[in-house]
Amino acid sequence: MAIAPSQLAYVPFVSVENMMRLVHHVGIEPFLTELAGYIEEDFKRWPEFDKTPRVAAHVPDGVIELMPTADNALYGFKYVNGHPKNTRTGHQTVTAFGVLSEVETGYPVLLSEMTVLTALRTAATSALVGRYLAPKGAEVMAMIGNGAQCEFQAMAFRALCGIGRLRLYDIDPAATEKAARNLTAQGFDVVACTSGEEAVTGAQILTTCTADKQYATILTDNMVGSGQHINAIGGDCPGKTELHRDILLRSDIFVEYPEQTRIEGEIQALPPDHPVTELWQVMRGEAPGRRDDRQLTLFDSVGFATEDFSALRYVRDKIRGTEFAVDLDMLADPDDPRDLFGMLARSAQ
Amino acid sequence: MAIAPSQLAYVPFVSVENMMRLVHHVGIEPFLTELAGYIEEDFKRWPEFDKTPRVAAHVPDGVIELMPTADNALYGFKYVNGHPKNTRTGHQTVTAFGVLSEVETGYPVLLSEMTVLTALRTAATSALVGRYLAPKGAEVMAMIGNGAQCEFQAMAFRALCGIGRLRLYDIDPAATEKAARNLTAQGFDVVACTSGEEAVTGAQILTTCTADKQYATILTDNMVGSGQHINAIGGDCPGKTELHRDILLRSDIFVEYPEQTRIEGEIQALPPDHPVTELWQVMRGEAPGRRDDRQLTLFDSVGFATEDFSALRYVRDKIRGTEFAVDLDMLADPDDPRDLFGMLARSAQ
Repeated sequence: MAIAPSQLAYVPFVSVENMMRLVHHVGIEPFLTELAGYIEEDFKRWPEFDKTPRVAAHVPDGVIELMPTADNALYGFKYVNGHPKNTRTGHQTVTAFGVLSEVETGYPVLLSEMTVLTALRTAATSALVGRYLAPKGAEVMAMIGNGAQCEFQAMAFRALCGIGRLRLYDIDPAATEKAARNLTAQGFDVVACTSGEEAVTGAQILTTCTADKQYATILTDNMVGSGQHINAIGGDCPGKTELHRDILLRSDIFVEYPEQTRIEGEIQALPPDHPVTELWQVMRGEAPGRRDDRQLTLFDSVGFATEDFSALRYVRDKIRGTEFAVDLDMLADPDDPRDLFGMLARSAQ
Repeated sequence: MAIAPSQLAYVPFVSVENMMRLVHHVGIEPFLTELAGYIEEDFKRWPEFDKTPRVAAHVPDGVIELMPTADNALYGFKYVNGHPKNTRTGHQTVTAFGVLSEVETGYPVLLSEMTVLTALRTAATSALVGRYLAPKGAEVMAMIGNGAQCEFQAMAFRALCGIGRLRLYDIDPAATEKAARNLTAQGFDVVACTSGEEAVTGAQILTTCTADKQYATILTDNMVGSGQHINAIGGDCPGKTELHRDILLRSDIFVEYPEQTRIEGEIQALPPDHPVTELWQVMRGEAPGRRDDRQLTLFDSVGFATEDFSALRYVRDKIRGTEFAVDLDMLADPDDPRDLFGMLARSAQ
């Protein structure tokens, strides 16, 4: 006799296919805008969160990380890997999934794919930060590194900051071609460039988003003027940076969670007491964002657990009453909670 | 147009129902014996593992933990909660699920329920340790605390150590009645007792397995003689212990991972330099287990990540070629790994 579990045993699961259906149901740009709203809301209540640097297992060709956080009602974590060599075997560099649970019972209430969702939340976070830091009237964004994250960044910066013109460069012309094709189809004015120097020409926002796990110099000091905003996405683990140190020294640097960024971000190249501004303070109006037209601002993005928490919270709210989740029989639910063995024994009959 | 993901995007998922089917397919006691074999194998190659104390979020009524570990081929983690008050609302005290991934790519290769599996691995570990530490010819086990873990412990101690006679006690007689009913049906010689003192009479193995999150004294010093083996399961988080300190002081104490046990186990009541023996050294023959008939041995069990790793590894091996797993569309898998956005954009068509 198969025993049907009660509703307590089920966890709603959002597959990759259903996540994509949900995104199109909402619309890509409205999704990014609403998601940025959840991320901003959670940054503004930053002190309410349990925060810890992610727990990373560094393996020969990459990293596997767990990123937990919690407020007083919900607990969330993301599993995410980063394996730059994966593309050689047809695998994604980054895959991810996440879980949201009720703090009161510890029961998971959502299991979701997060490969697509992480791409969206990373972009939504960058563009949200761009709204506080990018120069007024910015129209042109240079994008160096045209891999999997590139188009998501562009869409978010259009949705949240009104960016319509893009200058793309990647050391692999095929990547630029791919991004240019996708973004032209989305209505952007796209220029494919053949060097980083060409890409940054006339851009008010400089987005770096490359994947190699090494100390790289995607932007040299002479490529950066004044008054720009640098959105540095790719320097996100120990030994992986993108900017020349001189750029850091003349930038005002904004970070998510200093304890994590000092280990993983561009600022790993600086002394541990180099001043940085925390974004939550800017969003709450407790610290200045962009102050003037000549200031060089830098978002040293590494991605923090609260952003995944916000994304899971958003998805949980959006799937209510939809068909974009299926119930998984993931939790044992005996009639008598102490009779787990009886449930097992009876299931044989 | 729905785009069918390739095989790379799928993760085999073992539901609670399929886990129970798998257990019965193998047989409960053979399952526990084989599982103990995997656990022992991994303890014996202890230095190969990346080890870290679990990452715990302590919430008002419980704890939510992530327990990761890895060897050079596989990475595993378990999500597990512990909420003693959950039974009041018909929830399990402990629920869990786990994931096994390939280190080379970071891709998950198994998602499994672990509420049932944790109950099995905890019991298999205790009985495995019992094989090294219990007195020769032990026949009778006292079990104080007759909740969800009780019967699993009994089954494992029969399968691995030949225990056939049980003396049960719980402060809640209904729990004892439940366990006695289940275990009599499994062919045990069961005595239901009305006090802890009565339960320990004539027992060579004393198992304590209570759930309250407090400093409790389930065993007082006068209840314990010499030559016995104490299998202390319930003292497993800060502020939660079961044994009087005097028992600890005259026991030889064996632990899984001292860095974690000193925070969570019975030995949190002792100075941080109190000598303990690591089980992996006993299993490798590098440290003595039981030395003589008068020695009081204590397994201060808290549960360690490698045991979950072993359990996931075992389940992964056992489900090969069976119908006990279903494929979940959990990982995005674009044709071109860098073209995640293109996959999303095309899925709208």
